[in-house]
Amino acid sequence: MNRIAIVLSHTSHPGNIGAAARAMKTMGLTDLRLVNPEVFPSDVATARASGATDVLDAARVFTSLKDAIADCVHVVGSSARGRDFVGEVSDARTASKALVDARAHGQVALVFGCEMSGLTNAEVALCQTLAFIPANPDYSSLNLGSAVQVFAYEIRVAAGETAGFAAPQFQLATQGEIDAMFTHMEAALTDVGFFNPDNPKRLFPRLKRLFNRTRLEREEVDIFRGIFRAMQQAASGAIRRRRE
Amino acid sequence: MNRIAIVLSHTSHPGNIGAAARAMKTMGLTDLRLVNPEVFPSDVATARASGATDVLDAARVFTSLKDAIADCVHVVGSSARGRDFVGEVSDARTASKALVDARAHGQVALVFGCEMSGLTNAEVALCQTLAFIPANPDYSSLNLGSAVQVFAYEIRVAAGETAGFAAPQFQLATQGEIDAMFTHMEAALTDVGFFNPDNPKRLFPRLKRLFNRTRLEREEVDIFRGIFRAMQQAASGAIRRRRE
Repeated sequence: MNRIAIVLSHTSHPGNIGAAARAMKTMGLTDLRLVNPEVFPSDVATARASGATDVLDAARVFTSLKDAIADCVHVVGSSARGRDFVGEVSDARTASKALVDARAHGQVALVFGCEMSGLTNAEVALCQTLAFIPANPDYSSLNLGSAVQVFAYEIRVAAGETAGFAAPQFQLATQGEIDAMFTHMEAALTDVGFFNPDNPKRLFPRLKRLFNRTRLEREEVDIFRGIFRAMQQAASGAIRRRRE
Repeated sequence: MNRIAIVLSHTSHPGNIGAAARAMKTMGLTDLRLVNPEVFPSDVATARASGATDVLDAARVFTSLKDAIADCVHVVGSSARGRDFVGEVSDARTASKALVDARAHGQVALVFGCEMSGLTNAEVALCQTLAFIPANPDYSSLNLGSAVQVFAYEIRVAAGETAGFAAPQFQLATQGEIDAMFTHMEAALTDVGFFNPDNPKRLFPRLKRLFNRTRLEREEVDIFRGIFRAMQQAASGAIRRRRE
């Protein structure tokens, strides 16, 4: 991931530099480059970076975008609108995939312009591709840190790093266990007087539809069997009490 | 998109509520619900919301997550780790698709816990699905506003709203025009003494490889033909001067 540089050009607010560093680190990116930041270093940036001050500390400052990307074989500019650009345009997902693929050839860069007006035409001319984040056409103004976060996330996914945590695994019930549960259910519902086998209506098809949707686990089948036993005991107790 | 609610539970920093509102609006989401926010309304939230104060103004405040999601048919919790949850777990992309699909059945919700510790176990128990944003396992702590941005973006993409701007369209050169350009190029390079047709080596295969990669436009072919004409005139002038 250190083959992909994030370049912030002419950033006005140091907080956004910190937010970008944090967004980068959450996605495993480490190479931050700053072109003429208005304020840097800055306590505000450090505070917003939270646990990502290492990215901030390693950031390099350049006086022009040309210098910042001199070592890069593929340069993508982030932009919310088209402007005077005659090169390739793609969405964030496609552009991130291209960045990840181009790493095979050398260092690559993703460039963000200043908060108010984005990349200048001169900066855009240094990019091979302009990339946009699909957004609400009536309000497409993502915060700079948020834009870095979306791209960094897409880069991580494009790199195949999609692992997170998994649901705990339980043993699923077999079809035989589920069939036996339904047989038991029918007996218990008959015993408590809810179900009449001579006039079954649509009850069991409906119940089977519900349980089929849930992929029952063995432990859940055991719980239901316990409930059915208790229902049957209660019913036989009631019958006994009525008889006494 | 108003069928998808973003629920922020026990948010500590009002700035994050504003950032979430802005992130929502950039992706066309409007239904913001707050469960026991520490400070709200707040000037800090309004400032961070930037142009999305309408989302903030329309936000509804609840005293429990249960109340906030009472009308929802599908509830996804955002979480960076697994914890005590025995339900379905999926990544942000999959969960966003499921939220978009479930809109057909009614209101749906995506829930975010407090900044420091995320959703409580009691809150997690109210969710059908836990969703994670794939992240750096050594530092998976996305800022709350950034996490809302990533999910809101995935929701927009899942809803098929992927339009942005397009590259300006130019007329591509035909294969015949490109062939004629290469013939002209060979003549011009011969005239200036760079190319020897009797000993061609690998020059033209290399040049053709380059131009084949670029999908030449008609205007570009015209520019090259102009350069070749100038090369040929310069060469014939040089020959004339030598003769004089």
